[in-house]
Amino acid sequence: MGSIATTSLEARLLCRQNRLTNTSGVAPGYLQANLLVLPAKHASDFHNLCLRNPVACPLLGMSSKPGDPHTIKPSACIQSIDFDVRTDFPKYRVYKEGRYLSGHCNILDLWKEEHVAFLIGCSFSFEDALTAAGLQPRHQQTNSIVAMYKSNIPLLPAGIFTGGRCIVSMRPYRPEQIDRVREVTRPYLSTHGEPVAWGWDGAKELGILDVDSPDFGDAQVFEDGDVPVFWACGVTPQMAVEAAGDRIDGLVFAHEPGHMLVTDWTAADLQKLQSNNL
Amino acid sequence: MGSIATTSLEARLLCRQNRLTNTSGVAPGYLQANLLVLPAKHASDFHNLCLRNPVACPLLGMSSKPGDPHTIKPSACIQSIDFDVRTDFPKYRVYKEGRYLSGHCNILDLWKEEHVAFLIGCSFSFEDALTAAGLQPRHQQTNSIVAMYKSNIPLLPAGIFTGGRCIVSMRPYRPEQIDRVREVTRPYLSTHGEPVAWGWDGAKELGILDVDSPDFGDAQVFEDGDVPVFWACGVTPQMAVEAAGDRIDGLVFAHEPGHMLVTDWTAADLQKLQSNNL
Repeated sequence: MGSIATTSLEARLLCRQNRLTNTSGVAPGYLQANLLVLPAKHASDFHNLCLRNPVACPLLGMSSKPGDPHTIKPSACIQSIDFDVRTDFPKYRVYKEGRYLSGHCNILDLWKEEHVAFLIGCSFSFEDALTAAGLQPRHQQTNSIVAMYKSNIPLLPAGIFTGGRCIVSMRPYRPEQIDRVREVTRPYLSTHGEPVAWGWDGAKELGILDVDSPDFGDAQVFEDGDVPVFWACGVTPQMAVEAAGDRIDGLVFAHEPGHMLVTDWTAADLQKLQSNNL
Repeated sequence: MGSIATTSLEARLLCRQNRLTNTSGVAPGYLQANLLVLPAKHASDFHNLCLRNPVACPLLGMSSKPGDPHTIKPSACIQSIDFDVRTDFPKYRVYKEGRYLSGHCNILDLWKEEHVAFLIGCSFSFEDALTAAGLQPRHQQTNSIVAMYKSNIPLLPAGIFTGGRCIVSMRPYRPEQIDRVREVTRPYLSTHGEPVAWGWDGAKELGILDVDSPDFGDAQVFEDGDVPVFWACGVTPQMAVEAAGDRIDGLVFAHEPGHMLVTDWTAADLQKLQSNNL
């Protein structure tokens, strides 16, 4: 990790210069975002996938028009006019026909007029609140990347996106802390909200048999009596892309897990972001 | 079934008079709703449950204030001033501490000042569109109640509502019809939208081993080559209530499966109801 940014704009500039990698704990109070970029012809199906699976894929923003890497709607999401979705994440992943091809520091040369970007809420957004409540996530204490796993929670299908499963992130806590952990993260509906499962039985229900072997990120240190607590994770769209396979025509870009965009949304915007006004 | 109503208001009046039961095919073009009524202290958790599980529990409306059985917000949902959520469904179910107690034609005597009603989208709403596309659901052809099953799709937890599973409704179709069935129902995001699974493998994935033994409604007639097609179902909140058990303090009311409220929302309002404006 390079210098620590304290504002969203500073964080994005450091990422653009490739001076920041793991964004956990960066720019406290700002909501962080996962990325999925895909050809416009698939945007409607992917948009439906997000609406049907808002815990794993909560939408924070999207390209205001195909091919434009600079403007995100709603405009409150990213307010700096020099924003570039092709450079302002620390690291990118490139997929072709649902298969991971390669990692990149930016996607300037790969971006085409057909591309539409979706910004999806990230659980890093509620980690400040956990820390403020005396519940700092273990991966921040150990300066590692949060552990992420493929779970058996089905992604409810939308168009070409069928057969996907949810990715979950995991933070160890003691059983007596779980009620408070649930309470603190509950309001963060737009950034995965409260946990989807907890405890060793919860891990089993998700089909996660070995917490020491995460599919992304780093294995976490368990202290005496700790149990795993799982949240839905915005890496999930990458699983949806893998499951869609060659039904996707054109290159797809995503962020490298743990390497997020810091948006201009703050915790104060959560109510506004809540998708249903009832 | 009594006389067939052609408008939402006519349908509600017939239900109030207990002259209508199965509402499938009633008042074409209007969106139909499932019901869950619970004590105000649990309303926030249930609201979160709906926002986190919008395919099974899409919110069409809710009580404008606790204890008021007459007004629903948004007001476009129910526009008649003499509306009464305690009488305008054909049949009701009463739950105590998560257990089904009894069936009722109305809940006038059971309703208390603490009660809050939630109206949840129903798949009957897209059956007119299926019929218009030459894909009339089998249960309409045979004058039976759609088959409904407990599935193993987890309901993502919210507050006291943990451990629930989704209910699904099932309509038989031929494999070559499924693409079209998915297309026709896809826009109905607020009334369960496109199917969650289909085919015999899909049934197996949902944990439904015997389609001839539905948990609610009637077994459906399969013709040669038909396979089951499953949609999320608004009976799901009743499973969430069962799973919450004695964490629920006070009486809970729901509709009898297949016996819905006809709202004043129409298919033309679907775009407006779509929960995320991005």
